[in-house]
Amino acid sequence: MVDRAKMVNKALDEAVPQKYPDTLYESMRYSLLAGGKRVRPALCLAACELVGGDVTAALPAACAMEMVHTMSLIHDDLPSMDNDDFRRGRPTNHKVYGEDIAILSGDALLTFAFEHIARATKGVSADRVLRVIIELGRASGAEGLVAGQVVDIQSENKSVGLDVLKYIHIHKTAALLEASVVCGAIAGGADEATIEKLRKYSRNIGLAFQVIDDILDVTQTTEQLGKTAAKDLAVNKTTYPKLLGLEKSKEVADQLILEAIQQLDGFDAAKAAPLVALAKYIGYRQN
Amino acid sequence: MVDRAKMVNKALDEAVPQKYPDTLYESMRYSLLAGGKRVRPALCLAACELVGGDVTAALPAACAMEMVHTMSLIHDDLPSMDNDDFRRGRPTNHKVYGEDIAILSGDALLTFAFEHIARATKGVSADRVLRVIIELGRASGAEGLVAGQVVDIQSENKSVGLDVLKYIHIHKTAALLEASVVCGAIAGGADEATIEKLRKYSRNIGLAFQVIDDILDVTQTTEQLGKTAAKDLAVNKTTYPKLLGLEKSKEVADQLILEAIQQLDGFDAAKAAPLVALAKYIGYRQN
Repeated sequence: MVDRAKMVNKALDEAVPQKYPDTLYESMRYSLLAGGKRVRPALCLAACELVGGDVTAALPAACAMEMVHTMSLIHDDLPSMDNDDFRRGRPTNHKVYGEDIAILSGDALLTFAFEHIARATKGVSADRVLRVIIELGRASGAEGLVAGQVVDIQSENKSVGLDVLKYIHIHKTAALLEASVVCGAIAGGADEATIEKLRKYSRNIGLAFQVIDDILDVTQTTEQLGKTAAKDLAVNKTTYPKLLGLEKSKEVADQLILEAIQQLDGFDAAKAAPLVALAKYIGYRQN
Repeated sequence: MVDRAKMVNKALDEAVPQKYPDTLYESMRYSLLAGGKRVRPALCLAACELVGGDVTAALPAACAMEMVHTMSLIHDDLPSMDNDDFRRGRPTNHKVYGEDIAILSGDALLTFAFEHIARATKGVSADRVLRVIIELGRASGAEGLVAGQVVDIQSENKSVGLDVLKYIHIHKTAALLEASVVCGAIAGGADEATIEKLRKYSRNIGLAFQVIDDILDVTQTTEQLGKTAAKDLAVNKTTYPKLLGLEKSKEVADQLILEAIQQLDGFDAAKAAPLVALAKYIGYRQN
């Protein structure tokens, strides 16, 4: 995973070089190259290789996942949204560049995600590249990430049930993790049955990812997380630990990870190892 | 042009139907269906037909242009940007739905523009659809619209020269008008030489569009414009009238329109008539 993160960081650095207007590109690069864990790109590349594709076929899509993810963090952190001052251990984008530039650099990263897939993907049929774009669009917009964020905002300071909480998690977090895996598989040349198997895997780890996030918000410090801890409690947000308690939440996450790994049963064990490892990483991560 | 606007309005209404989460889709539809003049879609469809394509081939791209344009208006109007209260004769998006929803519905429209082209374009080769996506991406992001907006913001309350003003206009306004024409031509099956001829046409009308915008800001009332008039003066913005005077600015716009129309010389006059009419409309519009 460390090697993969390096590969992705290099590709992101080259995809978004410093240019005029300076402030815009600095702001984009500030958040994009802030050294996240690159979980989404890692999933994308691993899915591509699992289905027999060359890793380079999925590299532009992998970078695009990180661009969209970064955009969502920049916009979510804005004062009119979650109003966060720290992210990945550093001041948030708008704290450094101002709200206007933060909004615009998010817009630019979102735009470039689609352009980059269309422009930089090589060795994949144009039909498949279009499918990748459709998957990413669905995961990022009003049927995915944005929808999740809207319902999340509207649920603050309200007590919501498990159905709404699940809706938020599936849309706000799981959708892009799902797209990462599915787009990697499409770029790698997977058939429909394989794509759907991997879709199930990714939905499970996506939901687990956010359950763990809820847990870590309670159990970890701001330093450990690199972002403000106990934030959910502070804004009285409904979370898995709040609804189910810590122990039961951990059980839910474990079960989701277990079922995700079961989806990989039909694959060659050696080839599936990276996706198994990523599922476990997501299930047992500490930040 | 009225018929075309109707066709586009219907297509936009169907492309973004009202769904859950209600507020998000209401906010998207509030601005998207606010009855703009649909200049970009009209250009896109006319370019497609001029090169011999069926109008339906360019309809998804035409709608996408309007989605990106609408997103840029929603985000530009935000308090941290131009802080505008009125647009198209109605309160701006954030005035009705709040800043958070306005940012998110802009994000959703931007995302959906790309998804819609990839998903809904029929009868066009996948390679050409990817080219359309690349053109739209370049026009909308850090090399286009967003770059123009950043330099525009940074130039407020500063006196800038004609070179910077031209940079702003070309990126903030002309880029998307150019993409509208070029994407229509690509979807319509145009060869490279034709695409480049139409690119020159569109660059000229794009620049003229913004020169006229600068002029109208001085000469028209808020009621006539449907948005705040004399805004440029209020924020001490450098404009064509400020740099060159009103008369000379009108001459510049006239010359740009003339040269745009000259690019259409080689085409069948009857077929080129809509693009000639659109150039004249842009050159002589009153709001």
